[in-house]
Amino acid sequence: MVQRITIRASQKKGDIVELTANQSHYLRRVLRLGVGDRFIAQDGLGAQWFATLSEDPTVAHVVEVVAAAQQVLPTAPLRLIAALPKGNSFDQVVRQATELGVSHIYPVISDRTLLKPKGNRLERWRRISQEASEQSERITVPEIFSPMPVNMCLQQANWKGLRYLCAARQNSPHLLAKLQDDLTSENLLDVTLMVGPEGGWTADEITVAIQQEYKTVTLGSVILRSVTASITALSLVAAARELLI
Amino acid sequence: MVQRITIRASQKKGDIVELTANQSHYLRRVLRLGVGDRFIAQDGLGAQWFATLSEDPTVAHVVEVVAAAQQVLPTAPLRLIAALPKGNSFDQVVRQATELGVSHIYPVISDRTLLKPKGNRLERWRRISQEASEQSERITVPEIFSPMPVNMCLQQANWKGLRYLCAARQNSPHLLAKLQDDLTSENLLDVTLMVGPEGGWTADEITVAIQQEYKTVTLGSVILRSVTASITALSLVAAARELLI
Repeated sequence: MVQRITIRASQKKGDIVELTANQSHYLRRVLRLGVGDRFIAQDGLGAQWFATLSEDPTVAHVVEVVAAAQQVLPTAPLRLIAALPKGNSFDQVVRQATELGVSHIYPVISDRTLLKPKGNRLERWRRISQEASEQSERITVPEIFSPMPVNMCLQQANWKGLRYLCAARQNSPHLLAKLQDDLTSENLLDVTLMVGPEGGWTADEITVAIQQEYKTVTLGSVILRSVTASITALSLVAAARELLI
Repeated sequence: MVQRITIRASQKKGDIVELTANQSHYLRRVLRLGVGDRFIAQDGLGAQWFATLSEDPTVAHVVEVVAAAQQVLPTAPLRLIAALPKGNSFDQVVRQATELGVSHIYPVISDRTLLKPKGNRLERWRRISQEASEQSERITVPEIFSPMPVNMCLQQANWKGLRYLCAARQNSPHLLAKLQDDLTSENLLDVTLMVGPEGGWTADEITVAIQQEYKTVTLGSVILRSVTASITALSLVAAARELLI
């Protein structure tokens, strides 16, 4: 398996990739690659290149573009709107959601949680997501947005495709049953999931979501923490999509 | 929602439940229940009682048995044989697997990992699983076994029902597709999942599993860490079962 790192577009200058000290350390010390060894540099937006390490630790040489046929194809958008849990457990949501193919993560603040996230967490989530993308050999890194109130997120967004609001203990159809009814090769393009805080969304938040054409679904009769609910919902979308491909 | 704690059978003496200092602290300080307030004491094997706190912090009074109709029915066995990952991330497997309804967890050592678990981890996993059971309002606590080599686990076991070996990047059918073919109301009773270490099971381990009638399945084209693979596989079994109920 060829290892990969994610670079900023500005790091690629013609046939040269300028490596940061961290990237150089990762390639040489952690992965133990030597001069002339090949790796993949990806820009996180879909472009990727084979490159080799040089004697100069700050420089790698681009050897060739990774052909589209060698790439794992990016899948259709899969958006997660997830209420911020207490503590650091959103780190885990970011990591596992990235593995499962999420394309956009919207950490939102529910009226029920009233948690004010600290300033530096967005940077941290982006770093976790980038690392997880590399480990999972994803060619795109999910976009993670600044936390905002859920109603603001819903009102700003103008998404098409399938929209599901996951609610606990509701007499709603199961997400998997809905996916199997709703997914066709035509609307495979776009799925958005809303996963609430431990106490569930407020009535007002549910009203706004229904106005935005979200369908209420359940993840089953089990009672899941918010973190596990996000991962379960994404697992079901990923699996239901795979069965259609 | 009535809060619940798990007690040992020996703690219930007639109409009295003898509370440990931890349980008393949890009920009084964490949950902020007062004298006369009701909670559920469960033995983790399926029996549960409504009880109330008394003036004596070490004693609760049993009020009545929780009727079967008020209980969430225990589901069919769902066994997870999972290779021990590095570090503490098996804690997360135990917690999330418990939420998703696992009944038996077999932490196993693969030839590829050679990780020797430390002595006190089993106790820790059991504590995590008990806490997660209470949070998820499960009436049974999963059984967690001492780590053993995977071949020993497979050779000791004599399970019926559906057995799946989850393998990465194999040209195998998707677990969800197999479940939907294989699950009927008759064999809903018993599902066993094997989830390997980061590098996958060894050829020898796969051979032993196939001898034991495990079917090889994939969790899709995405590359998942071992922790996420376990949770994804359990999510799919839980969802596929729910659609049949």
